[in-house]
Amino acid sequence: MYDEVSTFIEGACTVMATSSNAPSSAPAAEFAAPINVNFQSGELTGAGVKSLVRTISDLTGIFRDEAARRALDPNAVIYRVQTHAPAPEGAAGGLFWGTTFIEPGLVGDEYFMTKGHHHADRSRSEFYLTTAGLGALILMDENRRTTFQPMRPGTLHYIPAHTAHRVANTGETVLSFLACWPSDAGHDYESIAREGFSARLRKVNGAPVLVEEK
Amino acid sequence: MYDEVSTFIEGACTVMATSSNAPSSAPAAEFAAPINVNFQSGELTGAGVKSLVRTISDLTGIFRDEAARRALDPNAVIYRVQTHAPAPEGAAGGLFWGTTFIEPGLVGDEYFMTKGHHHADRSRSEFYLTTAGLGALILMDENRRTTFQPMRPGTLHYIPAHTAHRVANTGETVLSFLACWPSDAGHDYESIAREGFSARLRKVNGAPVLVEEK
Repeated sequence: MYDEVSTFIEGACTVMATSSNAPSSAPAAEFAAPINVNFQSGELTGAGVKSLVRTISDLTGIFRDEAARRALDPNAVIYRVQTHAPAPEGAAGGLFWGTTFIEPGLVGDEYFMTKGHHHADRSRSEFYLTTAGLGALILMDENRRTTFQPMRPGTLHYIPAHTAHRVANTGETVLSFLACWPSDAGHDYESIAREGFSARLRKVNGAPVLVEEK
Repeated sequence: MYDEVSTFIEGACTVMATSSNAPSSAPAAEFAAPINVNFQSGELTGAGVKSLVRTISDLTGIFRDEAARRALDPNAVIYRVQTHAPAPEGAAGGLFWGTTFIEPGLVGDEYFMTKGHHHADRSRSEFYLTTAGLGALILMDENRRTTFQPMRPGTLHYIPAHTAHRVANTGETVLSFLACWPSDAGHDYESIAREGFSARLRKVNGAPVLVEEK
């Protein structure tokens, strides 16, 4: 009845000839296999998902209270990032996906947070979608004006061009969020390491407060 | 103690002077307000979310069995799309977000599905993340070789450059999926309307089968 049919199996498409004299057609292009997203935890599973961890030692110079940072276990993991990169790094028009998991905790009065970065190509933007926990997306524009957006499960945040971004965990449990960004965005951590943000998110009377740096 | 503090309120950041003689700083850049994603339904809520619907009348010529299509209520909604566009249409480096909801049903033996399109800029890619239901992402490469990837809640699919894409609902309930794509991708529906895909997803003995077109 049909020259070729495809069976509907888990995670892949298999093409089968149903007649022994059916012409064999060229195989379909190799598409990246789908991966899986756990909407409760944010965890990514599947082929090619990579992970990196940032310990408190990796975050030297990031927090205001360096003595408090040094007093913590140097191997304590502050956050980890999973990345799914189905396009080559730097490819124009491609997209990457990732999840970041930030532990709850403080360095002095400052919440555990990511290093923060600009995109190396500052015209590139990004979406963040919170999956678990409570946090704050800290955004700084080109004029070094800093603001933040509260994060909770289901909040979708847009980080426009020319905007430095960092996330702090303001809750008592792991904060996780999905991210989608262009494969040619790149990361510029250097300018934040050198100049920082113009304000810090600190715990003041039990609540997160954005405090401008002097 | 602080020149300026920000209170942590729902969905926004308010900067307050805590001292009456504090210098008033320039307001922070206007960032798009976060919106909300319902992980069960895929529904987007928030300022600026737009919707469009496609009825069976809008899908003339899309399905193989035109008589079966004409026999359906012309106003029946086959799918609807929500879009969150925080960057201008066509802007390089920006991103858009959306959710598509496809009703369950058949036109003849063909599942309800989207029109399908290329990106107008064919170098542009896209992610789909399934939130509800069961479906199939149908992909066709530049050599008109068609394949598909099964969709179920949590599956994350990458649509690379130069790939036509369409989604069919193969289940008994609404299929929904989130999408993220570049704001300069654009849509080319014309080439699919003219040439179609090289294969159709049809219900054969109760299951979805990709059948090549003669």
